[in-house]
Amino acid sequence: MRSLRVAVTRDALINALQHVLKAVSANSPMPILKGIHIQAIANGLIFTASNTSMTIQYTISPNSSSLSVLENGGMVVPARYFNEIIRKLDDGFITLEIQEHFILTITTGISRIRLCGMDCAEFPSINRSENSPVHKYRMNNALLKSSIGQVTTAASVSDARPVLTGVYFEYTDHRFKLTATDGIRFASRTLHIEEPIDTGIHVIIPAKNLNEIAKMLSAEDETTDIEVDANRIRFIANELQVQSVLIGGAFPSVNIPQLYSSEIMMETACVLRAVERVFVLAGASIIRLAAASGKLDISSTTAEVGDIRDEVPLMERSGEDFTISLNGKLLMDILRCMDGEYVRLRFAGKMSPVVILPMDESSSSTLFLITPVRTAN
Amino acid sequence: MRSLRVAVTRDALINALQHVLKAVSANSPMPILKGIHIQAIANGLIFTASNTSMTIQYTISPNSSSLSVLENGGMVVPARYFNEIIRKLDDGFITLEIQEHFILTITTGISRIRLCGMDCAEFPSINRSENSPVHKYRMNNALLKSSIGQVTTAASVSDARPVLTGVYFEYTDHRFKLTATDGIRFASRTLHIEEPIDTGIHVIIPAKNLNEIAKMLSAEDETTDIEVDANRIRFIANELQVQSVLIGGAFPSVNIPQLYSSEIMMETACVLRAVERVFVLAGASIIRLAAASGKLDISSTTAEVGDIRDEVPLMERSGEDFTISLNGKLLMDILRCMDGEYVRLRFAGKMSPVVILPMDESSSSTLFLITPVRTAN
Repeated sequence: MRSLRVAVTRDALINALQHVLKAVSANSPMPILKGIHIQAIANGLIFTASNTSMTIQYTISPNSSSLSVLENGGMVVPARYFNEIIRKLDDGFITLEIQEHFILTITTGISRIRLCGMDCAEFPSINRSENSPVHKYRMNNALLKSSIGQVTTAASVSDARPVLTGVYFEYTDHRFKLTATDGIRFASRTLHIEEPIDTGIHVIIPAKNLNEIAKMLSAEDETTDIEVDANRIRFIANELQVQSVLIGGAFPSVNIPQLYSSEIMMETACVLRAVERVFVLAGASIIRLAAASGKLDISSTTAEVGDIRDEVPLMERSGEDFTISLNGKLLMDILRCMDGEYVRLRFAGKMSPVVILPMDESSSSTLFLITPVRTAN
Repeated sequence: MRSLRVAVTRDALINALQHVLKAVSANSPMPILKGIHIQAIANGLIFTASNTSMTIQYTISPNSSSLSVLENGGMVVPARYFNEIIRKLDDGFITLEIQEHFILTITTGISRIRLCGMDCAEFPSINRSENSPVHKYRMNNALLKSSIGQVTTAASVSDARPVLTGVYFEYTDHRFKLTATDGIRFASRTLHIEEPIDTGIHVIIPAKNLNEIAKMLSAEDETTDIEVDANRIRFIANELQVQSVLIGGAFPSVNIPQLYSSEIMMETACVLRAVERVFVLAGASIIRLAAASGKLDISSTTAEVGDIRDEVPLMERSGEDFTISLNGKLLMDILRCMDGEYVRLRFAGKMSPVVILPMDESSSSTLFLITPVRTAN
């Protein structure tokens, strides 16, 4: 039995739970992973949850007026019940303490709850590997959030080829490059980091975990420390630490067409709205783009239901007229995460991937590809 | 082929669709019921949808500046596609017209959609039966909405006994009485109507349909006309008409205990919060109430997880101490739809239904029953 006694506000508890619950494995075959590890130490009240792929740790600082640690100790409590109970309690200070063997007593006002827990000895923790060298980087949160949002759209959601469910992180020549592809589409973004270092890395991180991390990173003007060793990557931002496994294997290299026969430029919002409309009647998700005489004609058909035709004015245009068919869902995904008011689209032949990129040269480090669909006409 | 040509604003279309979509049968074996009947006549643009149990009709008035009918006519269009397309279009006037056989052409700005439809000849409509006498009533919307909300909580959701899925509407002695029960709980409310009439009725209306109707009735200070004939009930409120089938069969009569050994009174919000907390650990949904020395002790246990104990001060109390176990979910349902700041609970023995009613005599026409759970202690 480990002792524990703290008084903590409901608000602070709910905030901590919101962060770590994302890593709780509700359906885990390991009962302990359905729990949250609560640990009171001199440095604060630490909440940890893990689904084996990702471990999240959130610390309520003892300096804040919302916590007082009366006795150190820890226990693992069932996450779902603990969260539901805390949410239903009245605002104010809540006392958490271990009075009986593996039972957490929760008291506030006239409510008194006893919750059976588990030993925390076997709970996964965020620990630096002793034997493996660690590379450290620091990145701006806004940049990290937007890059993850853009690149993960292209990652695969099927487990058929595990490497494709990840985002490839490469650090060479003082530049970070994030890449993802599911075989049909491709996304990449290059970032210059604040304090360049000399060692290169290349690792594959599960896109699902990166998306959760991007959602958790708060204030846009803050920075996140990234630590990479041979088996794990860690993101450290104030009270929050998130550790993710890495995906083994070689990431496929993608050929980006350098030559193109036509390039058009449009307002991003305008083309997104048109594609969203046309997609309603896109049989098999296929939409048709036809660039001619100053406009892009976007259309689709669903057999026995109907057809739709929309158009978008071209702001700029070079090269010949073209028509191409592609998956409208993939195009919407890209347009939705695109930075900048204008978007460029490059055509290199009916069977070549379409290249989509922002107009402004400053953000030209972002690039998307979509492989077209072969159609009858 | 029927002709049709109207110009109507997107806002007016979306409002009309929001109302009628609730009656569209997405999984109907009859293809025509997956559609919405659109009909342009001198009196406006009428939208109708039906799932055989309920038919909803919404009329956009020709007097409003949001509609101009250029040519009368009608057609049935696929509801899902029509709704999705209208939502994706830009704000402003939209033209709907039939140019080709059973094809509705939708145009606005540079968007042009052609949607295949069906003949409207076979579409169900809201029609008064010619041969059956019709009884008419008028009810205040606020009263109707709150009564439906309270009484339908007690209706059964299982189709095992169809009459129990309905609400019993009785009109006798110038009073309307609504009653529902699923065999475990019971709810009733008596209403005095604005313009009493002499003919009595007693019909059973599907609770599901009543709930949809209650949600649709808007401004609280308006009234709804109710028309009942041998097979149907109709609710008519401005642009909206809703028709529901009636459920055949005899509604069971429920014995309401008139004698009780104890009565307690509490703050409704206070007891609801306590029950919600305790319910988190209520194994098999069972919670235990124990009234003694000025307070109601509420508790529950889930084996191998934990237990919770909460208490609520009693504002008034008569009779002896008691303890009783009941389904916490049913109690929460009642407390959530209860009018008034205070609630009374009457105990008539461990095996007798608990009677729950509002404190104020003015609203004492509302009454709920819960059959207790037999427990070991």
